[in-house]
Amino acid sequence: MSLMWKGDQDSDTAVVRRVTTHHSQPRYGVVDTTFATVNMGDIAVKALLAQGVAPQRIFRRTVPGFKDLAVAAKVMIEAGGCDIIVACGMVGPEAIDKQCGHEASLAIGQAQLMTSTHILEAFVHMDEAATDAELIRVVENRVTEHAVNAHWILEKPEELTKRAGTGARQGFSDIGAADPARTEASHLRPASRTR
Amino acid sequence: MSLMWKGDQDSDTAVVRRVTTHHSQPRYGVVDTTFATVNMGDIAVKALLAQGVAPQRIFRRTVPGFKDLAVAAKVMIEAGGCDIIVACGMVGPEAIDKQCGHEASLAIGQAQLMTSTHILEAFVHMDEAATDAELIRVVENRVTEHAVNAHWILEKPEELTKRAGTGARQGFSDIGAADPARTEASHLRPASRTR
Amino acid sequence: MSLMWKGDQDSDTAVVRRVTTHHSQPRYGVVDTTFATVNMGDIAVKALLAQGVAPQRIFRRTVPGFKDLAVAAKVMIEAGGCDIIVACGMVGPEAIDKQCGHEASLAIGQAQLMTSTHILEAFVHMDEAATDAELIRVVENRVTEHAVNAHWILEKPEELTKRAGTGARQGFSDIGAADPARTEASHLRPASRTR
Amino acid sequence: MSLMWKGDQDSDTAVVRRVTTHHSQPRYGVVDTTFATVNMGDIAVKALLAQGVAPQRIFRRTVPGFKDLAVAAKVMIEAGGCDIIVACGMVGPEAIDKQCGHEASLAIGQAQLMTSTHILEAFVHMDEAATDAELIRVVENRVTEHAVNAHWILEKPEELTKRAGTGARQGFSDIGAADPARTEASHLRPASRTR
Amino acid sequence: MSLMWKGDQDSDTAVVRRVTTHHSQPRYGVVDTTFATVNMGDIAVKALLAQGVAPQRIFRRTVPGFKDLAVAAKVMIEAGGCDIIVACGMVGPEAIDKQCGHEASLAIGQAQLMTSTHILEAFVHMDEAATDAELIRVVENRVTEHAVNAHWILEKPEELTKRAGTGARQGFSDIGAADPARTEASHLRPASRTR
Repeated sequence: MSLMWKGDQDSDTAVVRRVTTHHSQPRYGVVDTTFATVNMGDIAVKALLAQGVAPQRIFRRTVPGFKDLAVAAKVMIEAGGCDIIVACGMVGPEAIDKQCGHEASLAIGQAQLMTSTHILEAFVHMDEAATDAELIRVVENRVTEHAVNAHWILEKPEELTKRAGTGARQGFSDIGAADPARTEASHLRPASRTR
Repeated sequence: MSLMWKGDQDSDTAVVRRVTTHHSQPRYGVVDTTFATVNMGDIAVKALLAQGVAPQRIFRRTVPGFKDLAVAAKVMIEAGGCDIIVACGMVGPEAIDKQCGHEASLAIGQAQLMTSTHILEAFVHMDEAATDAELIRVVENRVTEHAVNAHWILEKPEELTKRAGTGARQGFSDIGAADPARTEASHLRPASRTR
Repeated sequence: MSLMWKGDQDSDTAVVRRVTTHHSQPRYGVVDTTFATVNMGDIAVKALLAQGVAPQRIFRRTVPGFKDLAVAAKVMIEAGGCDIIVACGMVGPEAIDKQCGHEASLAIGQAQLMTSTHILEAFVHMDEAATDAELIRVVENRVTEHAVNAHWILEKPEELTKRAGTGARQGFSDIGAADPARTEASHLRPASRTR
Repeated sequence: MSLMWKGDQDSDTAVVRRVTTHHSQPRYGVVDTTFATVNMGDIAVKALLAQGVAPQRIFRRTVPGFKDLAVAAKVMIEAGGCDIIVACGMVGPEAIDKQCGHEASLAIGQAQLMTSTHILEAFVHMDEAATDAELIRVVENRVTEHAVNAHWILEKPEELTKRAGTGARQGFSDIGAADPARTEASHLRPASRTR
Repeated sequence: MSLMWKGDQDSDTAVVRRVTTHHSQPRYGVVDTTFATVNMGDIAVKALLAQGVAPQRIFRRTVPGFKDLAVAAKVMIEAGGCDIIVACGMVGPEAIDKQCGHEASLAIGQAQLMTSTHILEAFVHMDEAATDAELIRVVENRVTEHAVNAHWILEKPEELTKRAGTGARQGFSDIGAADPARTEASHLRPASRTR
């Protein structure tokens, strides 16, 4: 991958910035599954288009299940020329589902390192929601925010740097930065869904 | 692997499509175990034949246990020229069996990334079934559907894309797409076997 | 590794078969530990000799514990020219022992993929047996059967293919193929030791 | 990475020492997340500056979550020329958060090995603190000490060697070296927060 | 790594033996942490010296915590020319400590495979001991025995082969080989500390 980095002074430090990719325009990959009960790939594509990414820069593929995502993403990077991937998966509620989700996550982590390319894991666990309607809302929120993150990583890294440590969350409301004046600390407790 | 990708417009996005492989006709590998109590490899081969795959394009190998599947699949890809693998395993009911199954799955995940080739993990857990008859039914359903998925990944990716987010399941009935009008959400609960 | 594969018709499919290795005669590696309480390496060597493998084709090494097996096996393959390895380990009964065994298994899985060579994991857990005498019996049975499997993988793959899905077990009696007429399904329950 | 090592006698052994890097002056990378509720990256940068590291030798990047840290660190090493990375993450209090943190840690471990470069994992778990104020204190202490460690690894390895086995802790008070005269052993019990 | 292997007949099999390394004299690396409460590296160095290893063949480095050991060991092998490493770590008593220890172990396993070099994991868990004095004894025993094992692996492999399956233990008394005449099997029970 032909990356160019520019170090420039920002307050008292330097910021690493990706200024070009190996295409004239970076390519986005979206991969989702038939296993999910919501069309996650469509949501990611719409979110990228809403960010102003031209359709011809967006590539999409669907695989059977989340264990097929990592290699699909790797092939889209290596053979399809994608510069970043949004990998969408839905994890079932049983223990074996969670173990499989863990295995899929580890493979996505490895695929990123093998390609030196970001693959954003937009996973939703079915038991995060109590109803189909809530599940759809969580999916739409999380996948959309991961697609925006993909855009920022690739083309607007300063949007991320200025939000460092602000408690951003995908799929639920942001929890905000830690506030020493806040004494109840409710956001630190498991019940507060900080995932 | 010599892959060719073609981006074409589909609604408001582009679809990545594998159009050729490095053989004139893609090769399918099937690997199963002597440990399983059902001849899973035979089921996979029959399902591929039923999809119209010519026998000479199907390669089969049997290894002792599921921990031997990943390297066997890798060798079938590297030295045997297979373009996709259906890896069939049966996981026993004890805790140590499940840990071994987890280790086997991780290795299959790595083998996919090292070869940039899909290896579909057609695993059945013995405790998914209450009787031998049910076990055989689950195996036949799951292995067959994974073989069909292998065919779609390699030769008909559009079949997968049009089923994105439709709640497809291997081994049990599909659960269907999420429906905001459905309020009982029974399919979100562990008892509903979404594996 | 210079492998040659031959596809030939077997019933309605083709069978992948390894016909030659990079030596005129394939080499077997056996690695065991000082940690085990049974000389597992000796058992493996005797089993290979009983299969008719000439002594000069068998290489043996002993390492301190099972966490040393994976790299030892890899070196025996890379620098010692072995075509397959039987890696023998004994896992203690405590939780930390089991975690270490899990780590050792993962490394063995990776070593196989990095070398594209089978490393058969002949592990016995000390809590599988209630007495030393039973432990010795389990070890002898399991290590011997893994050594036979190594021989079949390397030189008689058809022996494995014809046993596909027959419920073969190492260390205990085989459980046999699933039988739809059998209704009690006792072999599906954890108590039946299908490991 | 062009490293030079010098072995010199120290008491009765030799100490490995990194004397030069491939830059005239080694470069430090800091990567943090928008997910955290404290600006961890700023703390790391300030700590490096306090160690006398010139601003132009410090590179910073922010990614969405801790699962994005490993590949970001790898790219900062490979394409950004960093010689060491401080990777800052905050792990939420739920079980799924902890699993994701585990996955992120494994990826950071792999990224280190793939680049032969240290990536210091400065992770704080939200449930280590009972209030926001305490969380901020733990973060400041831990991130600062990891930044100092990064400086010592790269430029003052003798500072680490002389502290070998002294019970140093990041984020809480050091527990000190084991003392045979101490009989209560309170520091060995889980309640004593030796993390 | 330039290794030479010699196969020679030993009873009814052949023994793989490393006869030379790429140095005239093999080099030993010792890496430990500031996190530990005992100077583990010093113990390892003293044990190597007691084995007759010349000081100039022993290289030592200290890193902050056990998660830094794997990459440090890898660099000592690759850039420092070490032929084997003794990696010393102390794992705290809390659940998160144990998870981190697991992650560190997995990385050490991978580093061994990536370098085809043994890295002996000399880890002590703080909750193995009830007092500081006992902790020091366990550490001294285990680190010393791992250092001796390193020496045997590199220069006296026959010492290991003749102890195959003898129940050797590091840090506690050896448990001895399994004895069919022994009926109480107390050493098979968790309480007997076979770790």
